[in-house]
Parts: sequence; structure tokens; C-alpha cells
Amino acid sequence: MFHKFELMKIALAQINTIIGAISHNREKIVDFSRKAVEKGADIVIFPELALCGYPPTDQIYFDLLESELKILVEQTANLPITIIVGSITEQKKGKPFNSLIVIREGKILHRYHKVLLPDYDVFDENRYFTAGVPQHPVEINGIKVGFTICEDIWIMDPDLKPIYDVNPLEPLKNADVVVNISGSPFSIGHPARRLNVITETARFTNSVVAYVNHVGAQTDLIFDGRSCVVYPDGTIEALAPAFQEALVVAEIKQSGTFPPFVGEPWIEDIHSALVVGIRDFFSKKGLKKAYVGLSGGIDSSVVCSLAVEALGSENVVGVLMPSQFTSNESIEDAEQLAKNLGIETYTIPITEPYERIVKTLQENVWDDKPFDVTEENIQARIRMIYLHALSNKLGGVILNTSNKSELATGYGTLYGDMAGALSVLGDVYKTWVYRLARVINQQHGNIIPERVMTKPPSAELRPNQTDQDTLPPYDILDTVLIRYIEMHEPASRIAEATGINIETVKSIINMVNRNEYKRYQAPPILRVTSKAFGIGRRMPIVGLFETTLK
Amino acid sequence: MFHKFELMKIALAQINTIIGAISHNREKIVDFSRKAVEKGADIVIFPELALCGYPPTDQIYFDLLESELKILVEQTANLPITIIVGSITEQKKGKPFNSLIVIREGKILHRYHKVLLPDYDVFDENRYFTAGVPQHPVEINGIKVGFTICEDIWIMDPDLKPIYDVNPLEPLKNADVVVNISGSPFSIGHPARRLNVITETARFTNSVVAYVNHVGAQTDLIFDGRSCVVYPDGTIEALAPAFQEALVVAEIKQSGTFPPFVGEPWIEDIHSALVVGIRDFFSKKGLKKAYVGLSGGIDSSVVCSLAVEALGSENVVGVLMPSQFTSNESIEDAEQLAKNLGIETYTIPITEPYERIVKTLQENVWDDKPFDVTEENIQARIRMIYLHALSNKLGGVILNTSNKSELATGYGTLYGDMAGALSVLGDVYKTWVYRLARVINQQHGNIIPERVMTKPPSAELRPNQTDQDTLPPYDILDTVLIRYIEMHEPASRIAEATGINIETVKSIINMVNRNEYKRYQAPPILRVTSKAFGIGRRMPIVGLFETTLK
Repeated sequence: MFHKFELMKIALAQINTIIGAISHNREKIVDFSRKAVEKGADIVIFPELALCGYPPTDQIYFDLLESELKILVEQTANLPITIIVGSITEQKKGKPFNSLIVIREGKILHRYHKVLLPDYDVFDENRYFTAGVPQHPVEINGIKVGFTICEDIWIMDPDLKPIYDVNPLEPLKNADVVVNISGSPFSIGHPARRLNVITETARFTNSVVAYVNHVGAQTDLIFDGRSCVVYPDGTIEALAPAFQEALVVAEIKQSGTFPPFVGEPWIEDIHSALVVGIRDFFSKKGLKKAYVGLSGGIDSSVVCSLAVEALGSENVVGVLMPSQFTSNESIEDAEQLAKNLGIETYTIPITEPYERIVKTLQENVWDDKPFDVTEENIQARIRMIYLHALSNKLGGVILNTSNKSELATGYGTLYGDMAGALSVLGDVYKTWVYRLARVINQQHGNIIPERVMTKPPSAELRPNQTDQDTLPPYDILDTVLIRYIEMHEPASRIAEATGINIETVKSIINMVNRNEYKRYQAPPILRVTSKAFGIGRRMPIVGLFETTLK
Repeated sequence: MFHKFELMKIALAQINTIIGAISHNREKIVDFSRKAVEKGADIVIFPELALCGYPPTDQIYFDLLESELKILVEQTANLPITIIVGSITEQKKGKPFNSLIVIREGKILHRYHKVLLPDYDVFDENRYFTAGVPQHPVEINGIKVGFTICEDIWIMDPDLKPIYDVNPLEPLKNADVVVNISGSPFSIGHPARRLNVITETARFTNSVVAYVNHVGAQTDLIFDGRSCVVYPDGTIEALAPAFQEALVVAEIKQSGTFPPFVGEPWIEDIHSALVVGIRDFFSKKGLKKAYVGLSGGIDSSVVCSLAVEALGSENVVGVLMPSQFTSNESIEDAEQLAKNLGIETYTIPITEPYERIVKTLQENVWDDKPFDVTEENIQARIRMIYLHALSNKLGGVILNTSNKSELATGYGTLYGDMAGALSVLGDVYKTWVYRLARVINQQHGNIIPERVMTKPPSAELRPNQTDQDTLPPYDILDTVLIRYIEMHEPASRIAEATGINIETVKSIINMVNRNEYKRYQAPPILRVTSKAFGIGRRMPIVGLFETTLK
């Protein structure tokens, strides 16, 4: 088997597609196929649903995809290479298949249809597709090639194995090569878990696995690529880089390994993912300029730094919007950050409009009521008005700076600091934001002022406020949140496992539950954990949560 | 068969549950069972997943449901009646079953697991459940009873039949009674389609069908009930009322028919659905007071009237927020409406804060730029601030007044008039809002001033503005929107079918596509059509929409 394979060069085409931009994606497929020919490859492999982009969403109901596929076949007819590409095909039983297509010089040689359709977390594939049936390997250029699409090999994952009845790998034992085309989004820990699945697939089938993943961001979902070729003994042959497009030609003697997943490199992975997430959101929407409200706090400092990395300092504008509650330190820190980043800033005080609104309410509704959350929210919402006025008048969009701990507990103002086109840190817990700041400073030379990382966090919406007036200490808070949100543990189990007081645990869970309504209206959130807020987590707005509090 | 059935009394327990409120739902099940005994029933039937509420959402991952079911069995042990109820049971293959449980005097006599799991529109059942296998009828009290759960009988629907491999009704032919427990949400046309499915099930199985549905609203989903007993010849025996809880005991000689679905009663159905939607949102969340921004226009007039019907005039507050662009007619109409409804009002002018914000922006960012959408949005957002200040300081929540035509085209201000806790009209096209106003006036005696229904609609955000400065006439707009959104027709097909100019059609579709980002952050929307914005419609924020424009 290896002998034959040595005679063959397989190109892994790890591309960044745009959902629904079929012409654009097709041009890219033709372009990468041509480059693969130039590199002497016999086969070039593209990701799952590369033609329409992944995930295709409800656009699938406007089905013209067989005819679009036909154009691709025609456009590559003159290229002496076998092309393996993902596409939607054939309406069967009211729903199409999620297919792998083998194309060679103007002909479709073979079709394989995805067998295992995932429905957990962010996936909705039974909504869109009819399941295929397992197939035996097919001979291509004298080599026995088995086909699989993404989830088909996750039957090798111990957590997922029990939910499926069929093992699509069963007929693929002792193939020469097993191809897997994927749309496998990044989350921390996922690359290691995925590599394990690929390795187990190679072992189970006793075949070389050629794995090709998407790269780049699709609004909230960020694909890390990391396409690879893996041998049955676990040797990693050819590894495409993370978070960037690549055309990697697999050669047998070349070797490589995944970067080790030890220590804290997951923070660096989050860093890369968020930069890609911002960059692709802007580039795919044809946007240039980003506004970030700079409070002098850690969240806005980190978002602004990431935005500069993704978009360039010339495309990021910092907006300082001080009130009577803003400390001089906060203004200094925000200004220092902007100076370090080399970005333009505006300073627009909110005090006068704030006082005018409070006075109008007093004149027309209540005479004299004590300061409370009402006045805090008014401040946050005036800042939202300023930011969006800049966006409307001067172009560009607002980056949201809420972190996951705030979103979880509802510690933020809906239509205020919760507003924006894209939430950069909405899947990053507060304690992680600090780590991210350190990584940014290590890589870019202390951009974020030291004081930002050491002073107590505060929303500065009333005198001497700190986050810990309202919330438990962030290390306790995040410990509970991770177990509740990502591991679905009820209160008693969390208290038992962590030693944190059960009443504290319940009060945190109650905060999460009570604030579903706020998160429902939050911006799309860049996903970096296994359970981000958004489409992957579905909880009622109206309802009780009895079982979560047991 | 009929002879035996005549000796039997079946109670249809059409109840309104709260998601995740297991204790509350269980109490209701015990209570209705007791009442069914008092009415002499032999069997009482509750809806699908009545114990945990439907849809259960990701709360299902906190599984304590077998133990919760056990408590129900114990609490009904002393009642001489057979109880059929829906509950989540038995983790199998990593996911539980969606089950029908037959309980009798402290024992579980039988379990049936849902076979067909829907994944279209608002349904995500493969996410949560393992599919069961079809079962033969079971003898209960000497009668052959077949069991099905919701989707299992939709194999009789011509559109859905092709997507399923298995017919759960096959083994149920010539049962005496086929029970179906459902969670079938309302949308216009759906009750008629559902009755057809029930009738076809009775015909196919040659059995009496006892059908029990949920009633009441779960945030966006509104269940209309309409539980019934139907004979193989199509005779409707026992029909529970729409949109209210009921315990109906089926007796053979009793007869009834569904209200006819001809003419315009669908508008009356929408009317009932929206009132239930508002009422349950407030009652299930423990809320009392609603604020409605009154512009003097048709949308806010209709929302305010529906709110008064749902919550009582003492719990609805109208808020007038005039600017320099507000006409005297608008103020008069808003005041007249409030007077007709007998509600409290506040009048809070926005002019001064608006001028202050515009001036601050001019002083700090731009000197002198022409009035544009920036200033329009500032007005809408100050109104949002006022409304939410009332909510914060005085309690209660804001009802959103955007209609579906506006949401579709992005004709509204995000964080401005698009804000609110619940969107009442977000699934009602503008042309339908006028019809709804007429129905309300017919039923409640011309509450909505005539001029509101006849003047040209305007946002009044600049001098002499009307909606038709920006949008096509609403009858053309809505015709295109319905075909694009609900029927998934691409541009060319819409132009051909309607005779509307293809460029007009494309420009409308482009408006819809471009504004996915706004709708992503819209409030939950009461669902009354087969394709509401929200979880049931999933389109990318970043992406192109090539196939929609073909």
C-alpha cells in the first residue's frame, strides 16, 4: 500500500470560502486546482461543501446546485488532475445530499453522500440533508480510495460513537487512502480531539487518512484548517498551517507533528482565532473601518488590540466617551493604549446629553427618585448612540467588547455596551481576557498598559463602582460558569466538585438563567469554546430551569 | 369497535405548560387528572412532553426526568383513571427518547417513543432525541389503543411524507383508538392542514383518533390547542376550543366541526394568537406592566390595543415621545387611542436631548455634515432610552412595534424602534396589520381612530417623510416578501408568477438579504406564519445569496 502511495502526490486545498458566493468559491477551486497541477499533484482535495460554503444555512432551499456543480466540472475539464470537492447534490426525499464529488477532466467519476449527520451544538444537518449509506473504496489512479465527510469519521470519538447506529468506516478497512473532507470549526481543545479522531480512523481502517478542513471565519464560526495526512501508526505526514489558507502537497518522506497541546498555547490559539474572526467578518462583508469604545478597561483594550492586528491601525478608531464617573486613570490608560497602537481617536463626553435626558425624565415622569440602574443604563446607551452615529455618518461598524462572564451573568446594558456588529470576546471568560492581554503584550511589546491589567475592573457608571460590588470574584465566577455552561452540570454537582458554596453556585446559575433574554439580542459572537452563546446553545426566554438548580 | 368505544370516556387535557417548570406542570397534570375522574373519564390524555414543557430546549442536558416522572406516578396512584402523558425518558445512545407514558394507579403500564423526529423550521428534534420504532396497539381497558406522538402522524401530510423512511401508522391499522399527543404550534393555515392529517390518520388506520395538543405561548411559539376526536369517516367528535386551556370529555353522540377556514378568519386567528402570546409572555415571566411607544401610527396602535386585551388597561402604559418632526395629527391620534383604551400615558419630548447629542457630535467629531440617517437613528434611539428608563425605574417591559415588512427590509433602527422585550407584530406583514386593526375595531368598537388607518404611513424622522420614499408600495412589497420568505422562491420565479418587475423583485430580495444582521439582534417574535424570523429561519450574516437572486 505505501509503495503505491509513494507514487502519488495528494494536494490538500485548505481554502477560505464565502457562504452562498458560489461563483467566488468556484473560481477559488479552479485556481487551487491549477496550482496543484503546477505542483505535480495527482489529486487535489477541497473541504466539505466547498462550492456553496459551510454552513450553507437556509439558502439550501434555493436549489440550483447541480447546475453550479456542472459549471465547475466544465471549467476544470482541461486540468490533468483528479479533483475531490464537497457540494450539495440531488434532491432526494425532499432534502439533498451533502456530497463528495470526484471529478476528472470534465467527468464526474463518483459521488459519495455523507452518512452521519450531526445535530448537536452548532450543527443542524438533519434539517438540511438526507443521509447517505456507507460505501466501499473506489479505485482511482490504481489506488483504493475510501471516502468520508466530516462527521463520518467522528464515529471514532468515544463521546459521539454511542449516538450513531452505522459505522461508515466499516467497509473502508484496508483501503489505501481514506479521504475526509471537513467543515470542523475551532474551539479550544478541539484540534487535539480532532487529531485523535483522524489517527483512530487511520488505525481502524489501516489506511492513510487525507484530511482537508475549511479555514477562515463564517460570522461566528471560525475554522482553523490544520488539514493533514496521517498514517495508521499515527505518523503525521504533511500538516497545513492553522488559521490560514494553504495548498499542501503530501509527500511520504516529509514528516511533521501538530504543535503540542500542553501548557497554555490554547490562549494563543484563541488569539489567532479571534484575529481571523474579525478579519474575515470585515473582508467578507466588504467593510473596512472598526470603532471600539475605549473605557481604559481590559476588555476594550484587548478588543482594540485584536482589531488593529486584524485590520491595521489605519482602520481602527478608538472612541473615548467619558462621564463624570470616569476616572483620570481610565482616560490616561485609554489614551496610552491608542498611542501604543497608533490609532485615531475621538473623545466625545456624555455628561451633557446624560443630564439632559435625566432632567427630561424628571420633568415629565418622576420628580425625584434615587439614582439606580436606570441612570447607569442611560449612560451606556448614550455611548451606543455616539458609536452608531460615527458608523452612520462616517462608515464602518462597531466592535462589541462584552466578555463571556458578563454576557453569562447579564452584567451589561442591552442596547448599551452589549451593542455592536460583532462580539469579539463574547466567548472568552473574564479570567481568560487577562491571559489574552498578556499574550498580546508578549507578542507586540506591551501595547496594553500594565495598569489596565492590575486595577480592579469597573464599569464606572457610578462613583467608586467595581464589578465585584455585583459579581462574585471572577475566578470563582468563571469556575462555576464553565461547569454550568460547557459541561451542563447542575448546581449540586458543581458545588461538590469545586467546594464552592452551593448558594453561591445557585445564585450564579440563576443569573445565567435570568438573562437569556439579554443574550437573545446580543450580536453574533466569535466562537472559541465548545459551548458559545448563540445558535449552539438554545435555552428558553420564558421558562423555569428547575433541573439546572438541583 | 364503536360499540366498545361508546362505553369509554376519553378526556382530552389541553393544558398550558411552562418550560422547565416541572413541579408546576406536574401539579397541573395531577389537577386535570382529578377533574377527569370527576367527569367520569376512563382515560385522560395530556400533550407531548407535558411534564417538562415543549420545546424543552437545551435544558434536556440536565437530565433528572425519570425521577420527575416517578413522582408523577406516585402522586396519581390514588386516581382511578388511565393517564397518558408525554415525558422525556431513558438516556439511550447518548440521547433520551421523546416518550408517551401510560400510567395507571401507581404503575407505568407502557412506554412509546416518538418515531419521526422533525428538523425543519422551528424543530430540532434530532438534536435532542433518539428515534423510537413503530409499535403495535396495546390493549387498555379491553380496547386496542395505538400510540403516536405529534410528527408520527404527519407521515399523512403529502409534503412531509417523502422525507421519512418509516410509517409509524402501518402497525396501527384497525386499532380501536389511535392516540396522538402533540406540540403543534399555530401558524395561519396550519389548523386546517393539521385537521387533514388527523382525518387521514383516522382513515388510514381505520381507527378513532384522539388528538391532544398544547395550548398557550412559549416565548415566540404559540400553541392553539384544538384537540379533538376524529372518526375514520371524517366526523369530528369533541373539539377543544382554540387558544385556551380545556378538559374535554369525548362522547360519541356529541358532534362538532372545526370552524370553517374560509374568507378571512385567519386574521381573527392571528388576533387570538397574538393576545395569547402577549398574555403568556407576561404571566409566565411574572411580569405585569407593558410600555408601548405610541407614534399615532398603525403599528403602535394595534400593539397597544392587543396589549390592553391581553393584560388589561391598568397594565398598559402608552408613551408619546414627540420631536420637531412629529405632526399634530400624530399626537392627536395617539392621545385619542389612549383615551379609547383607557390607559395611562406619559409624554416625554425628545427634542432637547436630540439637539444636545447632535451638537456634542458636531463639537467633537464633525463640524457640519448634512442631515441623514444618522440623525434619524439618534431620534429612534433616544426613544428607546426613555422607554427603557421607564422600565428600569418603574418596572415592566417594552413591547416592540415593528412589523414583518419593516423587519424584512431593515426599515427600522436597530437599538431604536427595533428594541423591546417581545415583538408582537414581527411576523405580521404591514398589509395584514391594517386588516388586524379592522378586526380589532369590529370587536371592540372603533378603538383605533379612523385616520390612523387611512393616512400614509410615516416614521416622522424628517420633514414630510413617508414610508414610500424608501420602500415600494406595501401591497407589492408584501407580495414579494411572502413568496421569497415563506415559499423560498428565487427572483425570477417571483417576477414570473406576479408580473412584478424583476428589478423591483431583486431590490426587495437584496433588502431582505442585507438586513440579516439587524434581525439577528431583534427581540423574540410571536410566530403566526409558517416562516417567522427567528430560530425557524437561518440565514448567514456574512455571505452572499447568489441562488436567491437567480
